[in-house]
Amino acid sequence: MNIKLNLQYDGTEYHGWQIQKNGVTVQETVKNAVEKVTGENVTLIGCGRTDAGVHAENYICNFHTSASIPPDKYPYALNAALPSDIVCFGACEAQDDFDAARSAVKKRYVYRILNREFPDAILCRYAWHCRHSLDTEKMHEAAAAFLGEHDFIGFASSGFSVKTTVREIYSLDVTRKDDLITVDITGNGFLYNMVRIITGTLVSVGGGKLDPADMADIIASRDRERAGITAPAKGLCLKEVYYR
Amino acid sequence: MNIKLNLQYDGTEYHGWQIQKNGVTVQETVKNAVEKVTGENVTLIGCGRTDAGVHAENYICNFHTSASIPPDKYPYALNAALPSDIVCFGACEAQDDFDAARSAVKKRYVYRILNREFPDAILCRYAWHCRHSLDTEKMHEAAAAFLGEHDFIGFASSGFSVKTTVREIYSLDVTRKDDLITVDITGNGFLYNMVRIITGTLVSVGGGKLDPADMADIIASRDRERAGITAPAKGLCLKEVYYR
Repeated sequence: MNIKLNLQYDGTEYHGWQIQKNGVTVQETVKNAVEKVTGENVTLIGCGRTDAGVHAENYICNFHTSASIPPDKYPYALNAALPSDIVCFGACEAQDDFDAARSAVKKRYVYRILNREFPDAILCRYAWHCRHSLDTEKMHEAAAAFLGEHDFIGFASSGFSVKTTVREIYSLDVTRKDDLITVDITGNGFLYNMVRIITGTLVSVGGGKLDPADMADIIASRDRERAGITAPAKGLCLKEVYYR
Repeated sequence: MNIKLNLQYDGTEYHGWQIQKNGVTVQETVKNAVEKVTGENVTLIGCGRTDAGVHAENYICNFHTSASIPPDKYPYALNAALPSDIVCFGACEAQDDFDAARSAVKKRYVYRILNREFPDAILCRYAWHCRHSLDTEKMHEAAAAFLGEHDFIGFASSGFSVKTTVREIYSLDVTRKDDLITVDITGNGFLYNMVRIITGTLVSVGGGKLDPADMADIIASRDRERAGITAPAKGLCLKEVYYR
């Protein structure tokens, strides 16, 4: 049976999704819980890597098992075995060829920026505190240049190999509610640190260091040096993964 | 100079406000920061004790100093010396006889309850997860019995000495927004664990274990056994302290 899980997690205490030697990861923690519940060794396939400190509201993963547990019982059994900062809130049987990574066609991320004089004792875990005033109108204007298909190599950190650095952005919205600015982005896929670099670039625009009118040119230059900084991980949250 | 500070904190990692031997407290952490900034030994007076795990949105404290730092510079200097889960967002010079504890005339607390099937990976730090369905109409009905002046000894944990156990509740509202129930209470003061025991009692009402019609009688009985459980600390937040 191919089991698909929906997870929510607070990434603050984890070294990202993917299992690694130096530190506890979400994948390892969930894998251990699944193995405890099923009594089997499993391969846990995640919908993608999230960096250390990044959160997820609806992360999708799957595993194959011969355990006879009814799929809808997994959330209860797993939550009893998981720490409180990782929650399984859904499980179902997927088609046999469903693969949380390869079957994904679209992802939505949200980045939160706290834009005010003083930081926040709670949001410090879930948002980037920018003290200087940001012009969200300009950020919104700059966002339009990212829409559509582009080679985003200038908006990626090195260190991961991919077949192509071309990605398509379906939507990119910048909105403000009181002191909180939200960058909401949906695309067919994202390069390593791409959402965080796009956010860092939009913050440069909002702070007046970059001009919205130059954005198309900066993207076309494919030059990492011309884009903004990589925004901190803690502000980023994977909201949704879409499958065919 | 008598300096009054406004603090916000995430109480998760602290053993409450008041300095104690077994564990790091908010008072100790802020006192150390103030002493680092002023270069003096200070007595830091807080508006009240908050328990381990309880949060505060606007906690008031004060200290006397002969340092010549302009009051409005304290937030910047203190935040540089404080961990990210404690934020100073305001400071001013208070009258010489201002005492954050003794001058307080009214306090407002908010308790949050997440009422749904599965827990939340982020709210697990800031709300009490109640899986069984709660009837907020009944909770609202029961809340009315708490208004006014009562001897609340039946809604207090033992372990603290006070002159009187009579307190006055000015308002107590129970509201629901989606899965989140908020208990919002304002009074002239609260006994040890009083807000948490009132909340635990309202949850018993919401779950059908207690009848709203019996609430006045339960309060009048002054019997701790007849009230509900002490709701967990993490759902509680001190919202505001009022001074004359």
